[in-house]
Order: sequence, then structure tokens, then C-alpha cells
Amino acid sequence: MTTYMAEFLGTMILIWLGDGVVASVALNKSKGKDGGWIVVTVAWGLAVAIPAYIFGGISGAHLNPAVTIGNAFIGKFAWNQVAGYIIAQMLGGIVGGLLVWLTYLPHWKETEDKAAKLGVFCTAPAIRDFKANFLTEVLATALLVFGLLGLGQAEMVAGFGAFAAGLLIVVIGLSLGGPTGYAINPARDLGPRIAHAILPIAGKGGSDWEYSWIPVIGPVLGGILGAIIFNLVF
Amino acid sequence: MTTYMAEFLGTMILIWLGDGVVASVALNKSKGKDGGWIVVTVAWGLAVAIPAYIFGGISGAHLNPAVTIGNAFIGKFAWNQVAGYIIAQMLGGIVGGLLVWLTYLPHWKETEDKAAKLGVFCTAPAIRDFKANFLTEVLATALLVFGLLGLGQAEMVAGFGAFAAGLLIVVIGLSLGGPTGYAINPARDLGPRIAHAILPIAGKGGSDWEYSWIPVIGPVLGGILGAIIFNLVF
Amino acid sequence: MTTYMAEFLGTMILIWLGDGVVASVALNKSKGKDGGWIVVTVAWGLAVAIPAYIFGGISGAHLNPAVTIGNAFIGKFAWNQVAGYIIAQMLGGIVGGLLVWLTYLPHWKETEDKAAKLGVFCTAPAIRDFKANFLTEVLATALLVFGLLGLGQAEMVAGFGAFAAGLLIVVIGLSLGGPTGYAINPARDLGPRIAHAILPIAGKGGSDWEYSWIPVIGPVLGGILGAIIFNLVF
Amino acid sequence: MTTYMAEFLGTMILIWLGDGVVASVALNKSKGKDGGWIVVTVAWGLAVAIPAYIFGGISGAHLNPAVTIGNAFIGKFAWNQVAGYIIAQMLGGIVGGLLVWLTYLPHWKETEDKAAKLGVFCTAPAIRDFKANFLTEVLATALLVFGLLGLGQAEMVAGFGAFAAGLLIVVIGLSLGGPTGYAINPARDLGPRIAHAILPIAGKGGSDWEYSWIPVIGPVLGGILGAIIFNLVF
Repeated sequence: MTTYMAEFLGTMILIWLGDGVVASVALNKSKGKDGGWIVVTVAWGLAVAIPAYIFGGISGAHLNPAVTIGNAFIGKFAWNQVAGYIIAQMLGGIVGGLLVWLTYLPHWKETEDKAAKLGVFCTAPAIRDFKANFLTEVLATALLVFGLLGLGQAEMVAGFGAFAAGLLIVVIGLSLGGPTGYAINPARDLGPRIAHAILPIAGKGGSDWEYSWIPVIGPVLGGILGAIIFNLVF
Repeated sequence: MTTYMAEFLGTMILIWLGDGVVASVALNKSKGKDGGWIVVTVAWGLAVAIPAYIFGGISGAHLNPAVTIGNAFIGKFAWNQVAGYIIAQMLGGIVGGLLVWLTYLPHWKETEDKAAKLGVFCTAPAIRDFKANFLTEVLATALLVFGLLGLGQAEMVAGFGAFAAGLLIVVIGLSLGGPTGYAINPARDLGPRIAHAILPIAGKGGSDWEYSWIPVIGPVLGGILGAIIFNLVF
Repeated sequence: MTTYMAEFLGTMILIWLGDGVVASVALNKSKGKDGGWIVVTVAWGLAVAIPAYIFGGISGAHLNPAVTIGNAFIGKFAWNQVAGYIIAQMLGGIVGGLLVWLTYLPHWKETEDKAAKLGVFCTAPAIRDFKANFLTEVLATALLVFGLLGLGQAEMVAGFGAFAAGLLIVVIGLSLGGPTGYAINPARDLGPRIAHAILPIAGKGGSDWEYSWIPVIGPVLGGILGAIIFNLVF
Repeated sequence: MTTYMAEFLGTMILIWLGDGVVASVALNKSKGKDGGWIVVTVAWGLAVAIPAYIFGGISGAHLNPAVTIGNAFIGKFAWNQVAGYIIAQMLGGIVGGLLVWLTYLPHWKETEDKAAKLGVFCTAPAIRDFKANFLTEVLATALLVFGLLGLGQAEMVAGFGAFAAGLLIVVIGLSLGGPTGYAINPARDLGPRIAHAILPIAGKGGSDWEYSWIPVIGPVLGGILGAIIFNLVF
């Protein structure tokens, strides 16, 4: 398997499981309806940990352009592979969105709320204030990339790394996810947003392109920032 | 101990604990009543992890005909043991259902809702749409078997494998369990459904045999699909 | 430190943390009030795991007469230490109850419900049916002791054993705890019940001695049963 | 990196994530609003575990003056570094509070409740009874420091120590956090309380200096007590 295939499949599983839990808590008649914030955040953490276990040994399991770019910025990843990684991650995000749609197929027409249906695929801010939303995404992704690099240099036996990365995702969601829903990953947001725009989802509304650049540019900037701070202090 | 005994006891514990948590959240007067989706999904994950720890070294702790058949399909398990494994798993599922009935003995007559009582033993779809329900079970089980095989090839110290398998079950439940209640295991569904049909449960209704083939055939097909995809990419 | 001191301190911490979480969800004005079943069950699991880490290397961290007697029954623990272990565990349970009372000192008089206050210290059945309650305690403790012995023979790196034991407690609570509140440990129930009887708890009621023998005899019988089954199959 | 820098950054991340989760559950319009006690306690546990992983190898990741002083008291930490550690921890607590304010920037003016806004930064007792509140903080911090020292002497593979420390924080929160909100750390309470006093938080009230000494002196005394008990029994 190529590293690109690993990034594609890994991000696909990330989005399938991550957007899947939002579908489960948000769509009408789902058995997970209104399962609460702990359900959402634990699932997103595991949605990272599982593909990190499976594909970590092949591609490093970035699954996130902000991680890829951040690593490249400090010389820990080859720039000539960055474009390929990002394309694979974006395609994985789109196909992951497709799989969520299929998994929850009869639930879309049972759900009136267009914003809830869009919210399964991509993030929307709790309070629409683009400057503040941008800042939140920059800060949260800076901690994500700093944290992943920090965990990477910690001594751990085989099998703990992917789990610890999942714990980092859980706590970023629990603690910093309140204002914007913690995209912290351009492929997690833009990929399934494209899926939402393309797919014939029953009774869907617009894909909120106006906001779409924030969970792309914010995480990329945050990822670079986190990597630079890591490099400064370690 | 034979491998068949391990599969029998492991599946028995899986169903006792897994169906037990549904009893706890669904039956009237239970202290876990309405405990929420996190309670159900964490318990099912641990219901797999605990017997996987105990019996993994003996039989591999499949505990699931879809895992057994999927492994056999790609040459990772001997076909001549498949029937024995499946029989052991099914019997384990039935006896597990019996133990749930005994553990919650005074609660059945306190619970009016016949569907809730059946739901302790086996799954029912949130929206009755057999084609879509079938698709959901195929997809979720494909990810289960792909994931188990993927975790199996990851480098891990002793003691992490069963835990990681439990985490995979937790996230499949959280993220993909909303539409059908994630049977993803014929022995988990048909075994205790038979127990429901046989046992003198106070005020029970029918065992919904009409739906019963979906959480059997769907997972088997999904398991084969997941194993084949694993073989293609790894 | 002697093994008896380890059992005393370990059971003291077990009850302080375990009964503490019940205080937190049950007593008026507590910040954890109505925290839900996941709060209770996760805390009890960790209430076992933490002293198991700290004292496991000294005494084996039984923290439970049913575990001690079960192990002795199959020759895995010396009978001449059984009485000392049980006395240490019981005293630990009593002092643990004292610490819960002190930790939540101003909350007792703010809570009217006498049964809720007793329920902080010891278990009460959801449905008062002594035969069924007894059966539930036997079954759940049989699984506890079988599971602990099963985990003990599984291959695990240092640091995983106590954690896995905690996971077993979590899932027994989630899945089998609905009918009786899963005493599964005579020192967990009788120890703090004695503390409840002795301490000047504001506005307390009776200590429900009528039920008190069930969470003592049931777990002991269940522990022996689980140990014998383990010995038969392994 | 110096050990002081590690303590500063580690405590900054601890408070950013720990106070962040309180912001998420307490501030209006947050996606984590009313997420429940499990959300708060799990996040605080991970808020300790993540910096413990990243900085543990450099400074020991005390992140808490009560831990630093407790260790110094029993000769496990050099007294001449204590002041530097505490200053770094306090500054980390203040900057952590700043980061929470920035992460949730548009949410402060949407939240009327002044006590809720203060409660994001520092603890307040459920029942205002300074003697009892002091006792609770002493007891909970004694268990924290005893537990950390106890976990430190347990045999664990690399990667488990920080995780186990996080589990200890989770269960202290779940079980002993009900009366005072478990400061158990002077830098966790006084640091962000200073941030609350300094920052131009929209519609903020007073910083409750009257109570502020309890979650400072209580934890320091408790930490010393826990360390002495550890020394006596081990």
C-alpha cells in the first residue's frame, strides 16, 4: 500500500466515524439521538485513534492537512509529498461523507432541520463571528499539532501512541470545541462539505460556503503555529 | 480448554454483558434506566474487550461468525473449524441471553413495553426499511472486520490488543449504531433472539422473526467484504 | 508495609472513591448531582483500579472478601491469611465510609431523603425480592472473580493489569448493576453500612440490616462459584 | 528547555483545557453547554494527562504547587527549586486563563450569570462553609499526592504513567469533587482567578477573593499530608 492510499483510507474512516456520530446524535429517529457532548467527543477521539493504529505504520496517519503542513514547516515531513497527502486526505473526507450518507440513508428525510443535516458533514460556529471563530480554530489546531509533536517525542511502548493521540482529540473537543465545533482539520471540514454539496441528500439546504474558508485557513495557520512553537521549546 | 469452549464462554459473556446493559437502560426500575447512549456503547465495547482478554490466547476470541467467516475467506482461519466456531458462538449467545434474563429477573414483569423487552435480546431498526437496514449492517460489519484485521497487524505490546478491539466496538456503536442498533454479529442477534423465544419472560411479545435475517446475513456479507478489502490494501 | 495494611488502605480508598461518587450524584447541592449512571460506573471502576495500581504489588489488592475467599478456594491464596485480609478489608470499608462522610460534611443536612443517604454507604435493591436480589449478586460476583482470574492469566505488560481490572468493574456495573446496585463485595457493603450506623450523619434513617446479609453472602457464594468455574475451564 | 519552562507550558495547557471544559459546559451558546459532570471530569483528567506526557520527561510535570511542596517535604524534590516551580506554575495558570478567554471570546457577553463566568476560571464551593470546604480540599489533595506517589512506585511500562495520573484526576473529580469543585491545586485556582481579575471579560463580576485562600492553603496542607502518609506506609 502506498502512503497516499493509507492517508485516503485513514481519513475516509475518520470522517465516516466522526461525521457518523454527529449523524447519530442529530438525525431524527437515530438510536443515538441527543446522546450528548460526551458521545460526540469520545467518538471523534476514537475516529482518529482507530485509523492511527491501522495506518500509522504506513503513512504516519496524518489524516489532516494541518498536521502535514505543520510537520513540513519544521522539516519533519518532505514538502514534495505534501500535495499528495492533502489530495488523498480531501478525497478521503469526501468518500467518508458519502459513507455517512449511506449508513444513515432513511434518516435524512425524517429530519426537517437543514442546518442539522449540514452539521453532520461540516462545522458551523455557535456564534457567527468570523474573527473570533478564526481565532478559536487557530488556537485549537496549534494545540493539536503541538500536542501531537509533543506526544511523538514522549517515551511510549508500541500501541500507546495512537491511543494518546485519540485522547488529545477527545480533550480538545471537550474543552475547546464549544465555540466552533473544532474542525481543526481542513480535510475534516471541506471534504465532507463537498460531499454534502454533491450528494442527493433528502431535503438538504445550502452548504454554507461563506464560512467554509475559516475551518480551512484557520487550522492550517494554527498547525504551522503549533509546529513552530514545538520547535522553539523542544 | 478447547477453542470451541473458549468461543462458547466468550460469546456467552459478551451477550450477558452486552444485552445486560440494554436491560439496565431499558427495563423499568433498573438503576441504570435511561442511562444514555454512552452507557450502552461503552458497555458493549467492554463486553467484547473482557472476553477478548480472557479467551484471546486460546481461540483468538472471534465471538462473532462474521469475524470467523471473514477470516476464513482470506485464508487466515481454517474452514474446517468454521462450523464448530459458529455453533459455539450461537450457543454462547443463547446462554448469554438466559443469564441476562436471570440477572434482571424481577424487572421483566415491571416493564410493559414488549418491544423494549425484545430489544434487550436482539436489535430492531430505528426506521423499518429492510434494504437500508441491510446496507447499514453490511457497512458497519465491513468496518468491524477490516478494523480488527488492521489492528491485528499493528505493532502493540501485550495487553493492548483486546483493549483496542473494545475501542473499535465503542466507536462503531457511537458512530454507526444509530440506524439499526449495530448487530454486526449474527451470534449477538440470533442467539439471544432464540433465548427470547424460548424463555418464559414475563409479558413478552413476539421475537420479530421477519427482521431476524438482516442482522445475520448483513454482518456475514459485511465481514467478507471487510476481509477482502483488508486483503486488497494490505 | 504489611499485606494487611495494604488491604486496609486499598479498601479504604476504594470505598472513599466509590461511595464518594454516590454521594456526589445523590446528595443535594453537590456539583455532581444527577451526574448519571456513567458517572457512577466509571468512578467505581477507577476506585478499584487506583488502589490496585498502588497496592497490587504488595497484597495483590484483593480489596474484597469474595475475591480473597474465591482465591483461597482454588488454592491460589493461603487460607491462614484469609481472616486477616477480611478484617483489614472490613476496617478499610468502615474508614472509607468515614472519609466520605467528612468529604461531604455540609451536604447531609441539605438532603432530606434518608434512603438516598443510606444509599451512599451501601446498596439497596431496585426491586425488593430477596431471592432474585441474591441471585443477581451471586451471578455478578461469579463473573467478577472469574474475570479477575481470567485477566490474571492473560499476557499483559506491566501497568495494564490494574487498568483491565477497572474496566471489568465498569462493565459489571453498567451491565449487571441495574437490579441491586452491584455490591459484589461484602467489604464494600457491610463496611460502610457499619459506618452509616455509627456516624452522626445529619438526619439519617435506619441502616436496613434486613437486607444487609444478601450483599455479603451472595458475593461470597458468587466468588467461590466463579473461582471454581475458572478452575474447571482453565 | 528548562524545567521551569516545562512547568509553565504544562500548567498553561492544563488550565487552558481544564478551564476550557468549564467554559464549554457553562457559557451560553457553547456546543458543549450542559454537557454534564462526565464531560467536566474526563476533560480535567485529560488536561493533566496530555501535559504529563509531553513535559513529564523534562520537569516531572508537577503542574501543581501542592505536588511540588509535598514532594519536597519528603525529600523527593529539591527545596531550592520549589519557588521557581511555583512561579512557573502560577504564570502558567494565568496565561492558561487568558487562552480560555480568547478561545471562547464571543461567549462571555452572551452569558448573564457572573458566577458562572467566574466559575470558568476558579472554583467556588457548592455550600459556603469555609471549615468544611477547607477539609474537603485537604482530604482530596492528600489523596491526589498520595496517589501520584503510589502510582509512581508501581511497575508500569513507558506511556502508562501519565495516563494513570489522568485516571486518578478523573476519579477524584467524580468522587470527591461534589462539594468544592476540586481545586486540589493552588495554581489551578489562584492563577486563573488572577486572570479573571485582570482580563476585560464582558460583564464580569468580582473574583471572590474571600474564598480564594481555601483552594490555596487547603491543597498545600493536603499535599504535605498525603506525602507524609505515603512516606509512613511505603
